[in-house]
Amino acid sequence: MSSFKTVALIGRYDSPDVATALATMGDYLRKQGREVLVEKETAASCGLSGFPVADFDEIGARADLAVVQGGDGSMLNAARHLAVHQVPLVGVNLGRLGFMTDIASVKMLDAMADILAGRHTIEERTMLAVEVRRNGGTEFSTFVLNEVVVNKGAVLRLIEILVHIDGESVYDLRSDGLIVATPTGSTAYALSSDGPILQPSVPAFALVPICPHTLSNRPIIVSDRSVIEITLRRSIDARLHLDGQLECKLLEGDQVRIGRAQHTIAFVHPPGYSYYAMLREKLHWGKIL
Amino acid sequence: MSSFKTVALIGRYDSPDVATALATMGDYLRKQGREVLVEKETAASCGLSGFPVADFDEIGARADLAVVQGGDGSMLNAARHLAVHQVPLVGVNLGRLGFMTDIASVKMLDAMADILAGRHTIEERTMLAVEVRRNGGTEFSTFVLNEVVVNKGAVLRLIEILVHIDGESVYDLRSDGLIVATPTGSTAYALSSDGPILQPSVPAFALVPICPHTLSNRPIIVSDRSVIEITLRRSIDARLHLDGQLECKLLEGDQVRIGRAQHTIAFVHPPGYSYYAMLREKLHWGKIL
Amino acid sequence: MSSFKTVALIGRYDSPDVATALATMGDYLRKQGREVLVEKETAASCGLSGFPVADFDEIGARADLAVVQGGDGSMLNAARHLAVHQVPLVGVNLGRLGFMTDIASVKMLDAMADILAGRHTIEERTMLAVEVRRNGGTEFSTFVLNEVVVNKGAVLRLIEILVHIDGESVYDLRSDGLIVATPTGSTAYALSSDGPILQPSVPAFALVPICPHTLSNRPIIVSDRSVIEITLRRSIDARLHLDGQLECKLLEGDQVRIGRAQHTIAFVHPPGYSYYAMLREKLHWGKIL
Amino acid sequence: MSSFKTVALIGRYDSPDVATALATMGDYLRKQGREVLVEKETAASCGLSGFPVADFDEIGARADLAVVQGGDGSMLNAARHLAVHQVPLVGVNLGRLGFMTDIASVKMLDAMADILAGRHTIEERTMLAVEVRRNGGTEFSTFVLNEVVVNKGAVLRLIEILVHIDGESVYDLRSDGLIVATPTGSTAYALSSDGPILQPSVPAFALVPICPHTLSNRPIIVSDRSVIEITLRRSIDARLHLDGQLECKLLEGDQVRIGRAQHTIAFVHPPGYSYYAMLREKLHWGKIL
Repeated sequence: MSSFKTVALIGRYDSPDVATALATMGDYLRKQGREVLVEKETAASCGLSGFPVADFDEIGARADLAVVQGGDGSMLNAARHLAVHQVPLVGVNLGRLGFMTDIASVKMLDAMADILAGRHTIEERTMLAVEVRRNGGTEFSTFVLNEVVVNKGAVLRLIEILVHIDGESVYDLRSDGLIVATPTGSTAYALSSDGPILQPSVPAFALVPICPHTLSNRPIIVSDRSVIEITLRRSIDARLHLDGQLECKLLEGDQVRIGRAQHTIAFVHPPGYSYYAMLREKLHWGKIL
Repeated sequence: MSSFKTVALIGRYDSPDVATALATMGDYLRKQGREVLVEKETAASCGLSGFPVADFDEIGARADLAVVQGGDGSMLNAARHLAVHQVPLVGVNLGRLGFMTDIASVKMLDAMADILAGRHTIEERTMLAVEVRRNGGTEFSTFVLNEVVVNKGAVLRLIEILVHIDGESVYDLRSDGLIVATPTGSTAYALSSDGPILQPSVPAFALVPICPHTLSNRPIIVSDRSVIEITLRRSIDARLHLDGQLECKLLEGDQVRIGRAQHTIAFVHPPGYSYYAMLREKLHWGKIL
Repeated sequence: MSSFKTVALIGRYDSPDVATALATMGDYLRKQGREVLVEKETAASCGLSGFPVADFDEIGARADLAVVQGGDGSMLNAARHLAVHQVPLVGVNLGRLGFMTDIASVKMLDAMADILAGRHTIEERTMLAVEVRRNGGTEFSTFVLNEVVVNKGAVLRLIEILVHIDGESVYDLRSDGLIVATPTGSTAYALSSDGPILQPSVPAFALVPICPHTLSNRPIIVSDRSVIEITLRRSIDARLHLDGQLECKLLEGDQVRIGRAQHTIAFVHPPGYSYYAMLREKLHWGKIL
Repeated sequence: MSSFKTVALIGRYDSPDVATALATMGDYLRKQGREVLVEKETAASCGLSGFPVADFDEIGARADLAVVQGGDGSMLNAARHLAVHQVPLVGVNLGRLGFMTDIASVKMLDAMADILAGRHTIEERTMLAVEVRRNGGTEFSTFVLNEVVVNKGAVLRLIEILVHIDGESVYDLRSDGLIVATPTGSTAYALSSDGPILQPSVPAFALVPICPHTLSNRPIIVSDRSVIEITLRRSIDARLHLDGQLECKLLEGDQVRIGRAQHTIAFVHPPGYSYYAMLREKLHWGKIL
């Protein structure tokens, strides 16, 4: 028997019909002799009963694996909570294919059988540690899997930021904002802002400006050992966005420090997983113009 | 004597030292036998006295020419107020070169001498008429010179809009927003969002998506006889921005209708003006990599 | 009866199985009482017999309509030959959908019935007149529908060109090349080089640089009344490409003059044709990421 | 005394006035007690005498340092010859600032004094090993510092290539070509083709398509441990370009295999060198629009 003795189930919050998929997976896992936990808010949101409920900290303490049924947003949320506990994630896609939820819903039990039998690969994904400093103190700090975005708020006025890497000045950027993305995040918001795709194993982060005022500005890829410091120099209404799920206001003078998080998050893939096949499908590269 | 008998002076509002430049221009114009009016808010903002004060409507009724001393923002504001009155504008640049304020401050009296002597060219710039419709009624309507922007507000969540041109469906766009720009506006915000440059005489508008989710999306150039209708299909917090100076919230279901304004605004250029020379200088095309 | 009494058939040259489609169309047209001509090289290439054969000049003199069965390349070729004769074109697509061949093969007889019955729209597409001048004389001149490309040859060394519009200097471009495209050509090679899409009715041309050395360079849209002059300043091995079908070498000092051609080419569309629907389908805009 | 006892001088080949700069440097180095060698073709090209002449192999065997006076092209050439011999390079810029020749000509003796005194930093730059395979055998193999380009030749017809990474299919690319660039090469041709900038220490390569037919195609950054295999599937006239200096024809079926070269090339920088400062200056990021 594989090491995945206790498995947590996490579902998309806003979707009541996720309950059936979760129950199917839960029943299957029990039949395979695994202990099953359902994440607390998931249970509350979809009304799933019949399985013990646990919050993320309990899951972190007890689970050997977490199965996320939903979309990329659900994976981001789970990763931020479970990375420190080193619980690996399996992504089952409900709806259209996600960049992270690589297992199709209809094949989830087959994929799970493979994974429980040890026929899987494990991929470590780098995360970002982010800290907001204000007036010499730490205002806020957390971890993210996709990206940190510093950008203008509702007012259509550019912001001006200073960017330093390892203490060295990079540029004084006047733009709508700046995205600092992990390889995982390179296929999310950064891609819409014309950033490149970073293969997950590349130990680097992408700095992608949003609507830069200086037309010769380009995305820059820096080592994931870099410490990136963004100082908000001028802004009427700037925001910090974390994985598109958390947000806070930024004030002039605030510093956002970004580096590699101490922990990675592990993704467990069934046999046959291919990052490039997923890209081709999601980005319609097969479609001939 | 040229037809510019009465000349209005308009200055940047946020800059007290514009008073000297305005007074210099005003004195010069009086010596040339012209009647001089100073725009009301300009006078209030910089404390200029010694010239009769007039609001934009009086300027519209009485002036044959308006000299704008400031930046592109001052020109946009003047254009929106004076286009209906058909008062042509001269742009004198205070600070760094503007796309619209093409006369350098140090050469303004020479340029003015040329213009008063009839040695000038007149360039008509197309404007946009924009109307916001809600629940079957008109919520708001105005004219803009640069662009109409429909975009997300402070929340980092894409908006979804339907775009129709002359009643025909163009696309269902999921993005941070969409810019509809005149040729004049093509060198402003639209350029930061990777839009093309439209020579001012091209009778067309540019539709430039901001961070589109569909990667094969591209700017589209449509005839200026088109009626562009943008319907906000899904959004948590969307905004309408007009020339970067006016703003209003948009609700799901709102329609923004955009077409060519009835009036153009005339720019008066001294001899030697070159649109392409201005582009080269502003965009540093002369600089060799 | 409609005015299309004599109809020419033109097929893709490199495809022998086009013969069946041509014969089907030819038989149908005869049944409708039309005179049918088959273009000479088409007949030779696919071995079609049973219809009178005519070269492009005869078609120009006699035909009221030409039906092109093939892809966009076949349309480009037909347009260059028939524009001066003002013979309108119908495009039937063999293979995958073309930007110009808008009628699906399986629906071609229905579409033709509509067209013969007068249920159609006619769209005039602008063409470019291009002339190569060398040592004060005209080396070469022709018409194109899509684009003129001045670019480097096989050697990976940038070329340097001077661009003037209506005698005014635009820029000194160091790049792999420059594309001057009509609205029709804006969805062809220019699109791959990050140019915008021009709605066919926009009276403008797009200047799209290929791999420009100056990163702030952007596509420029100019009035179709402009005369664009490209002077090859420095190059080891430069080429002129016309519609991707004709090619000649360019020497340092050569001038390429480009303007609107005197004649347009008319495209005949069956009912229900939509330019935007075609864009959506070809560019996969409907596909959600 | 530092370890740089024997110093080679290498100059731009096509520039006779490089002789003075080389002689100045050579005399200075002798005064500092160093042995000086002049690269053979450099000596022949600029007519410099008075120093012993050596070809690249002798330089590789005997020199502890090579001073390159010229531009980035001279550095590329020197790097390809000297990397296997592990001779570090110093770049002195003649003409405008280069991305690699970071020492201004007027400051070269001061910089050299610092370097000889051990006040310098050493930066290892990754190189690419490239091999062309045809009919099962190796047609050609070499090392490059900037990039490998597979692209169309003089004919304006797209090429079709299959790309595999570590044996896994990435895509079937239809485009003008594909650039595989090192971080050093990311600021060269790849940048003109809209590739991102890779900080030199990032252990990755950039795959940047040239004018891709599929509009959703994007640059991909892959680990420098990857083996990239490009198979030419369809082409009339394709070429392989290496650092923009070597070229060969490619035939349908040819495979180009690209991986990290065994050797790196070391760049020696004087105190105060900043990669980002160089970027800002070269790309005019300081210039406000």
